[in-house]
Amino acid sequence: MTTTRKIPTGISARHVHVSQEHLELLFGPGHKLTSIKALTQPGQFAADERVTLVGPKGVIQKVRILGPVRKATQVEISRTDCYALGVASPVRESGDIKGTPGIVIIGPYGPVKIEQGVIVAKRHIHFTPEDAKEFGVTDGQKVMVKTEGERPLIFDDVVARVREDFALDLHLDTDEANAAGLNQGDMVTILDDAATSAIRRA
Amino acid sequence: MTTTRKIPTGISARHVHVSQEHLELLFGPGHKLTSIKALTQPGQFAADERVTLVGPKGVIQKVRILGPVRKATQVEISRTDCYALGVASPVRESGDIKGTPGIVIIGPYGPVKIEQGVIVAKRHIHFTPEDAKEFGVTDGQKVMVKTEGERPLIFDDVVARVREDFALDLHLDTDEANAAGLNQGDMVTILDDAATSAIRRA
Repeated sequence: MTTTRKIPTGISARHVHVSQEHLELLFGPGHKLTSIKALTQPGQFAADERVTLVGPKGVIQKVRILGPVRKATQVEISRTDCYALGVASPVRESGDIKGTPGIVIIGPYGPVKIEQGVIVAKRHIHFTPEDAKEFGVTDGQKVMVKTEGERPLIFDDVVARVREDFALDLHLDTDEANAAGLNQGDMVTILDDAATSAIRRA
Repeated sequence: MTTTRKIPTGISARHVHVSQEHLELLFGPGHKLTSIKALTQPGQFAADERVTLVGPKGVIQKVRILGPVRKATQVEISRTDCYALGVASPVRESGDIKGTPGIVIIGPYGPVKIEQGVIVAKRHIHFTPEDAKEFGVTDGQKVMVKTEGERPLIFDDVVARVREDFALDLHLDTDEANAAGLNQGDMVTILDDAATSAIRRA
């Protein structure tokens, strides 16, 4: 650690990434996503389009699609949502969907049943290469993150992800943010080596 | 810390404690709670009776009552539930309900509107005096707790509660358990002084 700089928290509510093929099955032939709000990560946006998730045990309505479209459809939900839907999703990094559960997604034009792609997102920090250098971390490294919300805690096993088109941001899901009492934009700290080592030894 | 003993996790789903007066408004005159399962803490039980919570933004059905009846009605929900219901409850210790939000509770006999009593439970560990001595903690002390679930983390600000009629148990709500990837009965550790001090310094 070479900096005392803090990192803002971005809280991801449940959302869906869709392929163009699935988008058209859900919203009709030729449909294009409508951006209503740019997200922190460059080029990413919240779309106006929302869908319904139907699992074996429950239904969640009004789940927002995030754009742009991707190669593979991916549904990111919290562990709380897993219980509500009856879907036993593992904690995975985005894109790592092999062997994960599927689900039924319903749009105004029609339904899609995906065979895999429902994950609980693994917490991570986005760094530009310059930020990574400043924080002394490399792509894929696991760090500990100290929070100072209403319910302070230290997240272990937070993956550093370094890419030119990223913006500095700790990504948590709603269970994690709620457990820490964190709100969007709250600042957190990467734990220093001395504290990290002391925890590993404990 | 004088022990290497671990502590089991007890996960509290949303629930309601009721006064006898409110129980009768919800389930009818003279109604008594029906125990269907003893809880870890001696004398406490899950009741057969369930109610509906109605907040300004949403409704949650089938919320279980825990017995026995208490002097004051208290509703314990997660932060996730707060958003679903539209109720801005603070994190509080059980019984500390002054100034907290109210809610409408509906039973098969009728509704009750409570003026206060909806809290998000503050995480805590129950100790007998003997266990407290073994762990080297005193009533009201704040400790850090290290978890080893699918999503490891360290909970700071965990209150030790010591009473003769308690059983050793870390009480978390569902947001906290889900953020840590913990299941009922998973074992956790109180962090030693060296690691705790290193985190405080960081």
